[in-house]
Amino acid sequence: MVRLTTSENEHKRRIERVKETLSKRKLDALYLTSGVSFFYLTGYSYIATERPAALVIPLNGEITFMGPLLETDHIPLKTRLIKNIKTYPDYPGKKHPIDHFAQFLKDIGLARKRIGTDNMAGAAGIWGYSGPPITEKLPKAKFILAKDIIESMRLIKSKEEIELVRESAKWANLAHSLLQEYTMPGLWDFDVAIAASHEASVIMKKSLGPNYVPQRWGRFPAGAGFRGQVGEMSAIPHSIATKQPMKDGDVLITGAGAEIGGYSCELERTMILGEPTLKQQKYFEIMLKAQEAAFKALRPGAKCSSVDKATTKVLEKAGLSKLMRHHTGHGLGLEGHEPPWLDIGNEVVLKPGMIVSCEPGIYEPGFGGFRHSDTVLITEDSTEMITYYPRDLESLTIPT
Amino acid sequence: MVRLTTSENEHKRRIERVKETLSKRKLDALYLTSGVSFFYLTGYSYIATERPAALVIPLNGEITFMGPLLETDHIPLKTRLIKNIKTYPDYPGKKHPIDHFAQFLKDIGLARKRIGTDNMAGAAGIWGYSGPPITEKLPKAKFILAKDIIESMRLIKSKEEIELVRESAKWANLAHSLLQEYTMPGLWDFDVAIAASHEASVIMKKSLGPNYVPQRWGRFPAGAGFRGQVGEMSAIPHSIATKQPMKDGDVLITGAGAEIGGYSCELERTMILGEPTLKQQKYFEIMLKAQEAAFKALRPGAKCSSVDKATTKVLEKAGLSKLMRHHTGHGLGLEGHEPPWLDIGNEVVLKPGMIVSCEPGIYEPGFGGFRHSDTVLITEDSTEMITYYPRDLESLTIPT
Repeated sequence: MVRLTTSENEHKRRIERVKETLSKRKLDALYLTSGVSFFYLTGYSYIATERPAALVIPLNGEITFMGPLLETDHIPLKTRLIKNIKTYPDYPGKKHPIDHFAQFLKDIGLARKRIGTDNMAGAAGIWGYSGPPITEKLPKAKFILAKDIIESMRLIKSKEEIELVRESAKWANLAHSLLQEYTMPGLWDFDVAIAASHEASVIMKKSLGPNYVPQRWGRFPAGAGFRGQVGEMSAIPHSIATKQPMKDGDVLITGAGAEIGGYSCELERTMILGEPTLKQQKYFEIMLKAQEAAFKALRPGAKCSSVDKATTKVLEKAGLSKLMRHHTGHGLGLEGHEPPWLDIGNEVVLKPGMIVSCEPGIYEPGFGGFRHSDTVLITEDSTEMITYYPRDLESLTIPT
Repeated sequence: MVRLTTSENEHKRRIERVKETLSKRKLDALYLTSGVSFFYLTGYSYIATERPAALVIPLNGEITFMGPLLETDHIPLKTRLIKNIKTYPDYPGKKHPIDHFAQFLKDIGLARKRIGTDNMAGAAGIWGYSGPPITEKLPKAKFILAKDIIESMRLIKSKEEIELVRESAKWANLAHSLLQEYTMPGLWDFDVAIAASHEASVIMKKSLGPNYVPQRWGRFPAGAGFRGQVGEMSAIPHSIATKQPMKDGDVLITGAGAEIGGYSCELERTMILGEPTLKQQKYFEIMLKAQEAAFKALRPGAKCSSVDKATTKVLEKAGLSKLMRHHTGHGLGLEGHEPPWLDIGNEVVLKPGMIVSCEPGIYEPGFGGFRHSDTVLITEDSTEMITYYPRDLESLTIPT
């Protein structure tokens, strides 16, 4: 049967690895404030708001969730690994959540211990939250910044994680196929994007059956769109939206993904609406060459910086290095961007199990942007292309 | 003509108010890391990633944006208020962005000044970012936490902001109407949600015309859905998804909104699929009473805590206070949740211009959840209901 979520055994292995690291670093517990880390370790997905929450993994003893009352009935439905649920009524409350947390930590014997944390404030601190740091409330404990523990684990993807990202690529491919099929002059980019995402999501659900359940908030189950990179605005890598409907001659930069067990691949393409001009053809081919240079440079043992150097070299040789606006790529998995960074300043060595986007781009203001993004897995001796949507200009030209 | 964005004059007024506060607090500049604050002050929307960005508002002199190169062509298209754009190539880079930022601050004469900030690290610090705090890199400057400057401004909505949230309510109402119309047993909740959101978004765009442009990333232009609060899972306030299609007898909790100029209202309803049982009727009516008690308690001059007390009293009287899972509501506008909190522990006084959600709920595990949410504006002498979707059981019962 197709894998649609991470297994409980995988979560147990991750928790064991956390405990090994705690032991090596002589820490008594890890105190995490990131909802992504809760999900990574237990499969339970927390919607982060102003209400602080923390997951505490002691070296010895049960995992404790500390958070708002509204999660109390939720957690047991999603994981068996959190045995101890301690809640406060709401934020800010008569007694501040951080005061509750200090009491909870005392209750589980951590008042004078060495505690690693991803956040010295003791709370994620978003959406108008304010409060004193947990370190102030528990002066006899020793808090040590240990953000790297989960980050370094997430850097190398397990067999299960790789399966989930591979499965995601199928449905991202479907969403992108529909996006391309539905794109035509005169349409609003959001109209095409939501139509394709709707159809792809419904087909994915029907194909995968009742076991497919979205695990994270805020993404389409399967989705594809333009995020504002339409026509001249395609030259703006992080555009939000355009003012005009799509029109003949537009360069379009797309993005597609699908959430499987909380993971997604990244698939982006440059498409041309109508017959490409000579300049569009030229920029497209150079972008493609840069991406191919990156594919060649991506291998276990190579430095991240070498991949970025390879793409830069192609663009410099073509005399277009002034049109670069960002580096070659980034890791991905649970979040849209993660380490490792395929950046000229990053000397991290690529290792089997790393998954990265490969997406060198060129952007000419007033003219257009050109970028494909593919998801690539570093294997024992080479790489595996996880996304596989056509990359050539002919396949990506939309007749008008 | 209908207002679809905040005006440049409004942004200028906001910047002036920041400068007045800087002057009062004897600060030489405000250093902001929150993309929402960039948007609030200038109308330029930054997609926050691992790449740090900061907006610097000096007491005297031009506003400076410091951030990644990929934003350099974007900013002038969205605002005329940022005159000074200073970028680094990418993250992490050969030279770390924070080192660039320290240099930029020196260049604009702030190396030895008093600088208010929303974040002592000098960077939002998400998605795998790491770096030293800006305070370390500029040891002769004095950084002072001043997160409250923008927060307190956002607490009271201006005439323009109120117009935008009012406009949002129309399209949220449409999205919700379609959601209700399309809901039927056997359908996947996401299917209905995306279909309704698609249609509402396209109609909204056609009605508002070419001047309507989404301003923020990650929301539907107009959207409605269930976020997993279907059947038994309706008892989980922050559910993500369900395992089953919708079925006869289900309690459904919905949510709808629409992005107008970066702002949205909040509209949520409890719907019953099929003939309501006696127990469903009872819980629904009690929830409604609690919400009505809150509407009465909401008025200028009242404390936030008094509103929460009013709903709690209704639920206690009905013997259902054990089924409460959260407080009565929260502010909203640019973000889903904002201060002020309608919470028993919050003694903040309600003032004209505040916009809050009003949404007391009851949740019985294994049975269902009951919550409406409406958006309410505090006026000079009373309140204005911004959302107006029917609230009674008959209107919200879906025949099967």
